[in-house]
Amino acid sequence: MTDIRELGEFGLLERLTGNIRTDAGIIKGIGDDTAVLVAGEGDHELVTTDMLVSGDHFNTDWHSPWQIGWKSMIVNVSDIAAMGGLPDYALVSMALPDDIQVESLDEVFKGMLKACEKYGFTIIGGDTTHGDQLVINVVMLGHVEKNSLRLRSDAHEGDIICLTGDLGKSWAGLELLRAGKEGYTDFHLRPDCRLETARKLAPYVNAMIDVSDGLASEVNHICRESRLGAEIILEDIPISERTIETGKKLGKDPMEWALSGGEDFELLYTVSEEQYEKIKSTKPIMIGKITEKGVYIIDHNKKSPLTGGYDHFKR
Amino acid sequence: MTDIRELGEFGLLERLTGNIRTDAGIIKGIGDDTAVLVAGEGDHELVTTDMLVSGDHFNTDWHSPWQIGWKSMIVNVSDIAAMGGLPDYALVSMALPDDIQVESLDEVFKGMLKACEKYGFTIIGGDTTHGDQLVINVVMLGHVEKNSLRLRSDAHEGDIICLTGDLGKSWAGLELLRAGKEGYTDFHLRPDCRLETARKLAPYVNAMIDVSDGLASEVNHICRESRLGAEIILEDIPISERTIETGKKLGKDPMEWALSGGEDFELLYTVSEEQYEKIKSTKPIMIGKITEKGVYIIDHNKKSPLTGGYDHFKR
Repeated sequence: MTDIRELGEFGLLERLTGNIRTDAGIIKGIGDDTAVLVAGEGDHELVTTDMLVSGDHFNTDWHSPWQIGWKSMIVNVSDIAAMGGLPDYALVSMALPDDIQVESLDEVFKGMLKACEKYGFTIIGGDTTHGDQLVINVVMLGHVEKNSLRLRSDAHEGDIICLTGDLGKSWAGLELLRAGKEGYTDFHLRPDCRLETARKLAPYVNAMIDVSDGLASEVNHICRESRLGAEIILEDIPISERTIETGKKLGKDPMEWALSGGEDFELLYTVSEEQYEKIKSTKPIMIGKITEKGVYIIDHNKKSPLTGGYDHFKR
Repeated sequence: MTDIRELGEFGLLERLTGNIRTDAGIIKGIGDDTAVLVAGEGDHELVTTDMLVSGDHFNTDWHSPWQIGWKSMIVNVSDIAAMGGLPDYALVSMALPDDIQVESLDEVFKGMLKACEKYGFTIIGGDTTHGDQLVINVVMLGHVEKNSLRLRSDAHEGDIICLTGDLGKSWAGLELLRAGKEGYTDFHLRPDCRLETARKLAPYVNAMIDVSDGLASEVNHICRESRLGAEIILEDIPISERTIETGKKLGKDPMEWALSGGEDFELLYTVSEEQYEKIKSTKPIMIGKITEKGVYIIDHNKKSPLTGGYDHFKR
C-alpha cells in the first residue's frame, strides 16, 4: 500500500487523472488554473474549484469568519485571473461542524458577498451539509475572450519571466500568527488577487499562472507544461522590507517563504521582449528567462535546480 | 447566538442566500436541483454541486472506495436528470486524511470513471487537499434543451403527482448495515439515478425533482416553489416487498424511510392529465394531485399535514 505523503499532491493528481478521456469541447482539462471549455462562437468558458479546509487553509483562531468567506472566493478569482478571464458565477458547498453558530456563517457569507461585489460575480447555488470540521468548496465559472486565454503551456524560449508583485508576504503573516505575534499579518488574513492587472496583461503575455504554492512550484508548472526550462535570478525575486524584517524577527529565511510558502496570489507570467513594452505600465518585476531546458535558480555565480513548493500532503 | 440545528438545512440556506443578487444570464439561481444559465442561442447550461462527507453520506466501514466514488457522481447526475438535462463535465475536489492509501483513491476514481462512462460525461478538473476526514465535492455541468427544462416551480393545479419507482429502499439498506446485518443493501451501497427516464419525461411533464431527502421534503419543495398545495395518498406510495420485509425484521416503519429517509434518487414529478398518456410507457406511479393550497397526506379518511424529510443538521 502507498501512503499519499510519498506521492505528494502533484504526483497523486497525475496518477488519478491519467486515464481521463478528453473531447472536442474541452480546450484544457486537468493541468491548468482552470478548465477551459468551448462555449459556442463567443468567449471560452472557464471553470475552477478550490476546497478550503479548517486548519489547513485557514485557522479559526486568527481568521475571522468574514476573512474565511472572502478568502474562499479570492483563491478562485485568482485562478480565473491567471487564465486572462473574468469571473461570472460561484457555487458554494460547506461542511459545517455542530458547534458553528449561524451568526458566524452570516459573516462568512458577508465576506463572500464582498468579493462578489468587488469582482462582479454572483453566487448561483451550493450545498450545505454536516462535517467534523469546517470545509468550504467554491466552484467558479467565468469567461475569457479567445485571444486573451493564457495557458501554462504557452511559454516561448527567450521569454522574460515576470511577477506582478512581491512574494513571501502571506507566509510572513502566517509565521507571525503561529508565533502568537501581531503586525504584518494583513496579506495572510485578507489576501487579494490581481484580476485587474491580469486583464491588462492577458492580450500580450504568453504563459500565466497565479502564485498559490510558492514561486518554485509555479515556475516548474509553466516549464513542465511548455516543455521548456527557466533561469530565475535569486536576487531579483521581490521580497518587501517588511517581509525581510519579519524574517529577521522570527529567525527565518524569507526567501524560503517566497519560493515555497504560497498564497501570495501574485501572477507569474512570461512575455516576449517585443511585447514587453506594451505591458510596462503594469510595473512588471523581471526575475528570469525561459530557456530550452532545465529549471534553475541563479545565486550570483551559483546555479542550482529550482525545487520546492507547498504540498498539502508533505506538510 | 443561534445553533445551526435550530434553523435546519433549509432555513440556513434561506437565511444565508437571502441577499444574493441575480442577473439576466441566470434563469434559476439557488432553489432548484441545479442552477440554470443562459448559454447563447442554444441549450441552457446546468450547474450543480454536492458535497459528500465521510460518516454522513457514506461510511467507510461498509462502503467500498469504488462505491464512494460512484455515489459522489450519481448524486450529481440525478440533479441534472431532475432538470431534464444531460451531464457533460465534472470537477472533483477531495479533502484526504493522512491515513488514506493511494490504492483506495485509485478505486474511488474507478467508481467515478464508471459513472462517467455510463452517463457520458468527462472529469475536467479538481483539487486535492488535506483534511481530518474524507470529503468529496463534485461539481457537474450539463445542458438541457430550452423546452425540456423542468423546474420545481412549474407544477399546475390539477397535475397528477408521480414517481419513477419505489421509495425507502436506500434507507432499508442503511438500517440493515447499521444493525450489522447483510442482505438488501445494494440500493444503499450502490444507488443509481433515473437519467434515461428523465429524458423521456422532460418534454411532457411540469415540475420535476429527484428524491434525495425523502418524499415529504420533495413534495414540499415543489409546492413551495410553485405556490400550490398537494394531496398524497399514503397507500399509493410505492414500497417494495423487500423494503417492507426489512422493516419487519428490524422493527421499523418503512413508510418513515420513504417519507424522510432519502437517497432513493427516484424522480418525483407532476404532469397534466392530457400529457399523462404520452409518458405512460415509463410506468409512472401515481401518488397524488397538485391542489390549490396545503400539503397533506391522506391515510384512508385521515388527512394530515405532510412534514418531515432528511435534514443534515437535525440528525
